[in-house]
Amino acid sequence: MKIIGVDSAVYSVPLAVPVSDSTHGEMAFFELITVRIKDDQGCEGLGYTYTVGAGGLAIHCLIDRYLKPGLLGKDPGRVEEVWSWMWWKLHYAGRGGPASFAISAIDIALWDMAGKRTGEPLWRLLGGNNPRVKVYAGGIDLYFSLDALKEQTRRFLAQGYGAVKMKVGRPKLSEDVARVAAVRELVGPDIPLMVDVNMRWTAEQALRASRALAEFDIFWLEEPIIPDDLAGHIRIAKEGPLPIATGENMHTFYEFQNFITAGAVSFPEPDVSNCGGISVWMKVARLAEAHNLMVTSHGVHDLHVHTLAAVPNASYLEGHGFGLEKYITHPLRIEKGEAIAPDRPGHGVDLIWEKLEAHRTK
Amino acid sequence: MKIIGVDSAVYSVPLAVPVSDSTHGEMAFFELITVRIKDDQGCEGLGYTYTVGAGGLAIHCLIDRYLKPGLLGKDPGRVEEVWSWMWWKLHYAGRGGPASFAISAIDIALWDMAGKRTGEPLWRLLGGNNPRVKVYAGGIDLYFSLDALKEQTRRFLAQGYGAVKMKVGRPKLSEDVARVAAVRELVGPDIPLMVDVNMRWTAEQALRASRALAEFDIFWLEEPIIPDDLAGHIRIAKEGPLPIATGENMHTFYEFQNFITAGAVSFPEPDVSNCGGISVWMKVARLAEAHNLMVTSHGVHDLHVHTLAAVPNASYLEGHGFGLEKYITHPLRIEKGEAIAPDRPGHGVDLIWEKLEAHRTK
Repeated sequence: MKIIGVDSAVYSVPLAVPVSDSTHGEMAFFELITVRIKDDQGCEGLGYTYTVGAGGLAIHCLIDRYLKPGLLGKDPGRVEEVWSWMWWKLHYAGRGGPASFAISAIDIALWDMAGKRTGEPLWRLLGGNNPRVKVYAGGIDLYFSLDALKEQTRRFLAQGYGAVKMKVGRPKLSEDVARVAAVRELVGPDIPLMVDVNMRWTAEQALRASRALAEFDIFWLEEPIIPDDLAGHIRIAKEGPLPIATGENMHTFYEFQNFITAGAVSFPEPDVSNCGGISVWMKVARLAEAHNLMVTSHGVHDLHVHTLAAVPNASYLEGHGFGLEKYITHPLRIEKGEAIAPDRPGHGVDLIWEKLEAHRTK
Repeated sequence: MKIIGVDSAVYSVPLAVPVSDSTHGEMAFFELITVRIKDDQGCEGLGYTYTVGAGGLAIHCLIDRYLKPGLLGKDPGRVEEVWSWMWWKLHYAGRGGPASFAISAIDIALWDMAGKRTGEPLWRLLGGNNPRVKVYAGGIDLYFSLDALKEQTRRFLAQGYGAVKMKVGRPKLSEDVARVAAVRELVGPDIPLMVDVNMRWTAEQALRASRALAEFDIFWLEEPIIPDDLAGHIRIAKEGPLPIATGENMHTFYEFQNFITAGAVSFPEPDVSNCGGISVWMKVARLAEAHNLMVTSHGVHDLHVHTLAAVPNASYLEGHGFGLEKYITHPLRIEKGEAIAPDRPGHGVDLIWEKLEAHRTK
């Protein structure tokens, strides 16, 4: 079995409604980088990753110019071996950044092929715990008016979500407190409510906020500070009342290892599209399990519904497709606050290429 | 004062003699990525970075497609502000990898402009400690025969180097021991001798080797294990007899901070061309000084002669130009085991563009 084709493309996918957070400002589009891998047995897998607006063409370049030549001819079923080869091929200018995104996209395609080859959906192939995964609605709403925030929250509940996340990190902590109070009042006491800072604070600010927000029963405090500050996370986790989620900006298995073993994170949040793929996501989930921690996800919910359905220590799935749902033949099914992992072979995501074509940039 | 031009190019620079180490195998060429920044006052700065063969085109893409549009119009004298803008512009697919290489090249160009604007050489502008910097010859020679290794060592000594580094990490530790013993015997007891593993070992293997090599008076043991394994470095540093150097594969200030504050490294070894530029190199040097550590360098000796000449805690400069010396109008001056920081404004490196042109790939 040999890889005979590696085709990568880049699309600039507009968002229906521009979103905003404390770090990235207003985002009107996402870059989608796709890769289709074919083997000599007629099997084709789809991988993809995305950015919030910068770097997509560099990711494509790494796939197309540096990885593709060596991938051709390799056995697509030896995912670990291919993964290590990619890691070391890109290592000198790698160990994270766009290199991790490129590796992730290819790893996802290889796992999709493994599912298709065996006829199994990924959630079964990867372990098979429970296809029904609790899902929360991830709002990207920092600069929404309070009315718009409440309106969005009502819509999330009407859509069947049983948990919601909102952004915090406004210029004044009092604004964050007022907005969180309003959303908690709206959803009542039984809906889990997460808050996401997108790295805006220092450890001191995070501790002050953690204490101020605790009365609203916050499920987790996400990315309070930059992911580079391990010592800061340990302080916030130990001295503050709220559990910490982080990981969407961590691009290696080792970064998660450092945080998990140090007690710096309660809910590790790897993203298959940039942590190194499904291979690394699963390793992080197992490491979390070994530390008696629940694992969550970030973005690309069509893929994470599988990885979370595979493991026994699944926390909530983030429900956010970043505009991609319009370009997928079978968008994620959500029923009564649960996302359902599909039984189609592989990840079961088929992109509507004709519709994407208008947004192609490479 | 405004940036009005950002021109980037990529060259595949062949090496006169192919080199080899335990991780990268045989290397016959390096990718050189250049960036020339012009301002509206007629000042032009040169920045550059390099890879051992993969990723250069992605680095160029990040500079040309994602950073250049926002750099145009910015004040080139506000290096810190421009640096932060670049970091956050690329952050989602950044925090290392090719993003750090792109930022480094631009930061170097901005510092070159600062030197040219003031008429000062960088080593003075950055602090001005001592323009004479002890230099060692960095051999990349793992798969050289013992005869070739000894011949190279004799040549290094004849060229005036007062310290030498050799690669270790051969399949058998006994081979490494025999080669190190032979080189130590050749150079005598007074020449500092460093050994470089290029991440080949586990912590256990590194400790075993550290003990086996200690009798040969090793100045430092470089990159014994992967830079991701902080706990492993702490063990090797504390349980083994040899001091540890590492850093050429660390691409953020924070990675150095984690290692330095944990006591995991004795000789931090940032590389201006991939740690985030001269700005980050200087911060690492200051952090090392605060911990009473000497700082060293990796590659691009024409730039590091300035940064090491600027600080009071300079250890040895690595003398290795990776084939670039043929394309530089004023190659590094080395006298009696010391490299001399030039007094030309900025870094004083001028590339011979006509000669490079034959190797241009982008």
